[in-house]
Amino acid sequence: MNRTELTVVKIGGNVIDDRAALEAFAADFARLPGRKVLVHGGGRLATELSARLGLSTRMIDGRRVTDAATLRVAAMVYAGWINKSLVALLQADACNALGLSGADGGAIRSVRRAAAPVDYGYVGDIPADGVDADLVASLIEAGIVPVFCAITHDARGELLNTNADSVASAVAMALSSRYRVRLVFCFEKQGVLADPSDADSVIAHIEADGFERLRASGAVGQGMIPKIENALRAVAAGVARVEIKHSSALLTGGGTAITASRP
Amino acid sequence: MNRTELTVVKIGGNVIDDRAALEAFAADFARLPGRKVLVHGGGRLATELSARLGLSTRMIDGRRVTDAATLRVAAMVYAGWINKSLVALLQADACNALGLSGADGGAIRSVRRAAAPVDYGYVGDIPADGVDADLVASLIEAGIVPVFCAITHDARGELLNTNADSVASAVAMALSSRYRVRLVFCFEKQGVLADPSDADSVIAHIEADGFERLRASGAVGQGMIPKIENALRAVAAGVARVEIKHSSALLTGGGTAITASRP
Repeated sequence: MNRTELTVVKIGGNVIDDRAALEAFAADFARLPGRKVLVHGGGRLATELSARLGLSTRMIDGRRVTDAATLRVAAMVYAGWINKSLVALLQADACNALGLSGADGGAIRSVRRAAAPVDYGYVGDIPADGVDADLVASLIEAGIVPVFCAITHDARGELLNTNADSVASAVAMALSSRYRVRLVFCFEKQGVLADPSDADSVIAHIEADGFERLRASGAVGQGMIPKIENALRAVAAGVARVEIKHSSALLTGGGTAITASRP
Repeated sequence: MNRTELTVVKIGGNVIDDRAALEAFAADFARLPGRKVLVHGGGRLATELSARLGLSTRMIDGRRVTDAATLRVAAMVYAGWINKSLVALLQADACNALGLSGADGGAIRSVRRAAAPVDYGYVGDIPADGVDADLVASLIEAGIVPVFCAITHDARGELLNTNADSVASAVAMALSSRYRVRLVFCFEKQGVLADPSDADSVIAHIEADGFERLRASGAVGQGMIPKIENALRAVAAGVARVEIKHSSALLTGGGTAITASRP
């Protein structure tokens, strides 16, 4: 099969919170050749804005509990300020970015998470058929670079806060039937480390079998396990390759590549 | 000439500030037949959020002075909360809305207003070639309903606050070379009133010649003059018809129609 390549890149809060890093990342992303999609997280701004408005931020297992006031803050910060600032930066770098929430064009539908055992409020999870791949592909083929924030909708009028890693994975998986998809998670480390205290111990490659051995050995830090599991689900669902690397290394090699089987 | 019809509708703050009115308007707009574009203003929320953040709101001649902090608030409120809430409502009403700022896809470029005689800060005016009519028309022809907020960009990385009436006019004028455009300004009155104290004195029709007589007579309230002049510029630039009417009257007749010459 000789499908067109598509790169889906996810950046997190550490880049967004640092204007110089964000501008450098935008310049790199603009230069990334070929068809591409960007998904961004939120960063500290939502927490800061909530605090200034006297709203308390409650996190459970690293996920923000989203009441109605917090949802409004999330939509304002993610879909408003961060998304449009990024799009304006990319446009200035000659990248034809177009910002989207999941509500726009009905691009990403999610289902509000059940209120038990933990009520996360206005938080949505994306079902297997949640991404409108026809819409996203038609934008890409029209020369547009979709830039998704992590706000989705339930298609019944409600916006929902959604994990940005999950948005990136869902978009990558949905588009893998028509593109050879490379999914790149940019974060603040060089890759998955065999020894969390040694920045040079990047594991270059992980595949499903190897991960079971790696997990059994206890070498990989607990925080990385869900990221790797998420990546393995993506490659099992048709994504050609997942990379976990530093946000400054988008155009270079390095990082950890995760594939279904050893290439 | 038998061009396809396109309706460009602008709604203002009075509808946006009232959730019941907004939902009723969204349901009406969703039912409006044919190709269409929505442009929305801001409403009180940006002023309220600025106040809660301790930012002062300064208006000169009815226009908000936009410093860096105020621009962030405007982008958050207009492009984030209001735009995405409206899109989610329209999607639930089976209208394939897709929200855009001027930065998205480079849809609307503006030029930062000169700092003299009055420095309005991050405020942009749209030049004659500022709207990318190809992009907007391609979205419309793909079955999408563009929903614009009044945030544009300078194509050099900066977002700019822009008057929503001006955005609606610029989009309508730019698209009038390929569509027969009807531009509808929804507001809180039934139309242009011959006697501001009499809600039943709606002037059904104004054309360029008639307006000069109307203005000379002093019949039309001062507040309406810029709106009518704006409408006359739009029809002079190719827009087939401008309507000024109540936001609850989108699907009915009534209001004031403004055309280049008497039909």
